[in-house]
Amino acid sequence: MATDNGTPNIRYFTEANSEEQVIARITHPKGERFREIMISLIGHLHALIKDTELTQEEWDNAIDFLTRTGQKCDASRQEYILLSDTLGVSMLVDAINHRKHGGATENTVLGPFYVADAPIREMGANINLDGKGLPLFMSGKVIDIHGNPIAGALIDTWMTNEDGFYDVQQPAIQPKFNLRGRFYTKENGAYWFRGARPRYYPLPTDGPVGEMLLAMGRHPYRPAHIHFIVNAPGYIPVTTHVFMRGDIYLESDAVFGVKESLIIDFIEKDDPGEAARLGVANPFCTANFDFVLQKEGDGSSGLFLPTDSST
Amino acid sequence: MATDNGTPNIRYFTEANSEEQVIARITHPKGERFREIMISLIGHLHALIKDTELTQEEWDNAIDFLTRTGQKCDASRQEYILLSDTLGVSMLVDAINHRKHGGATENTVLGPFYVADAPIREMGANINLDGKGLPLFMSGKVIDIHGNPIAGALIDTWMTNEDGFYDVQQPAIQPKFNLRGRFYTKENGAYWFRGARPRYYPLPTDGPVGEMLLAMGRHPYRPAHIHFIVNAPGYIPVTTHVFMRGDIYLESDAVFGVKESLIIDFIEKDDPGEAARLGVANPFCTANFDFVLQKEGDGSSGLFLPTDSST
Repeated sequence: MATDNGTPNIRYFTEANSEEQVIARITHPKGERFREIMISLIGHLHALIKDTELTQEEWDNAIDFLTRTGQKCDASRQEYILLSDTLGVSMLVDAINHRKHGGATENTVLGPFYVADAPIREMGANINLDGKGLPLFMSGKVIDIHGNPIAGALIDTWMTNEDGFYDVQQPAIQPKFNLRGRFYTKENGAYWFRGARPRYYPLPTDGPVGEMLLAMGRHPYRPAHIHFIVNAPGYIPVTTHVFMRGDIYLESDAVFGVKESLIIDFIEKDDPGEAARLGVANPFCTANFDFVLQKEGDGSSGLFLPTDSST
Repeated sequence: MATDNGTPNIRYFTEANSEEQVIARITHPKGERFREIMISLIGHLHALIKDTELTQEEWDNAIDFLTRTGQKCDASRQEYILLSDTLGVSMLVDAINHRKHGGATENTVLGPFYVADAPIREMGANINLDGKGLPLFMSGKVIDIHGNPIAGALIDTWMTNEDGFYDVQQPAIQPKFNLRGRFYTKENGAYWFRGARPRYYPLPTDGPVGEMLLAMGRHPYRPAHIHFIVNAPGYIPVTTHVFMRGDIYLESDAVFGVKESLIIDFIEKDDPGEAARLGVANPFCTANFDFVLQKEGDGSSGLFLPTDSST
């Protein structure tokens, strides 16, 4: 209702009261957690508009960008995850949900190239099915935070070939499941397998996220890495990579995935004797990494927070 | 490079330094304004994730929501504008860009049902082409902030029929350009035309935004209103509505478009004599509103800010 003197009153939306007006409409939220998220979202969204004094034209551009980002998504492309990755949001969510203790191996992003049903292989198998690239002998062990070996841990690994492509990106060129495999650790927690040295590669840049990176002056590259998911009964699983020390993109990973503790040496070797012993062609390289798992209920925060949903 | 003692160093992304890491990548922004917007965006986005300690599942849901919102858009549906509208963002951008002075008529949102080429009509024309609903006689004048009449101002108006639908929503039912028209004001600034009383109506709720409103316990209705765009040479145009006093949704407009100064009386009348004089069927209603325009360069802020683009 109008006030008698006709002056504006606070029951209507104004520039000054905008957040409160919108938040006040959350009358019957579907849960307390949903309400909490919406209040934070509305507050930050309005503060963003106010801080920047966004013009109509800039708002038009933002609507257009968000719309095109959604429309770029299909069965094999998720442009919103790419946006989240390149703005550091995916890694931030990962960091918050996987705060590690006691030297447990740090997480990093899963990425879009994971395939759930890679073959379970004999320990030591060569997953470099087409023999391309510099041979890699990768080894290490899975241990708990006290250094005790974990036998029967399942190590799931995948990596690019020497051209920077995963098998699923080149189905006509690479053999199926090339450079992928799952391995169960031995009694002493050890694992080893043969593969190929991976390479840095660019994110897809033919969409709105590519435009955004270009507008910031950023490159789209990820440094060379090998993906791992390590599971063992009773332990918190870890989803991570190991990164190749010396890669030129280590300090500017387009998705902010690098952690100091995950950088390892890929040692190039020219040694026919060792090559023969390891079952790889000479020359080759070796890399070694131990995965440290934390027991469930051991203090990792955030992982099992009850949720009633986000937006 | 690793530090000698192997401790993490600040050149890599951490939960604590996340904003700085992402902002530091803006190395060659396409303009200072773009840089300013991205810095604010990254800061608020990371603060939102940290404030809420968003879980992976909530992040998954957010990615899914944003993706589906983009994919719901097509030639006749803009779900991202609907999202912006229902979160108060559209009205906030409008408010920031149309700060009015000296009693000039306040703006409100354009809405999705504007048609640029409505016919220019003779003053007094009846734009209620199918004769449905309670007849409306709408009148007023266009003046400057000192009260002087503005002759030759162009008034562009559109409204729903009594069922709450615009002509473009019912092309098989309503005549083309029903309840739309453009009028030039007379020498004394006056305008008048005949139409039909509008009705409240819901935003479309069959998409992600409808889910969001439901999850908040919000209804999707806009109170009854008539749209206007008023232009006159040398004056700042105004895009606005007038709202019907007494409408049950006035204080809960789903898009936050209502301003106290835009609420007017729609007076119902049963007076065959006045009806005959005004050229409407009895009973009918009347409404009156004067548009106050501000001269260009008269202090409206934000409208002509230079922009080099947003995302």
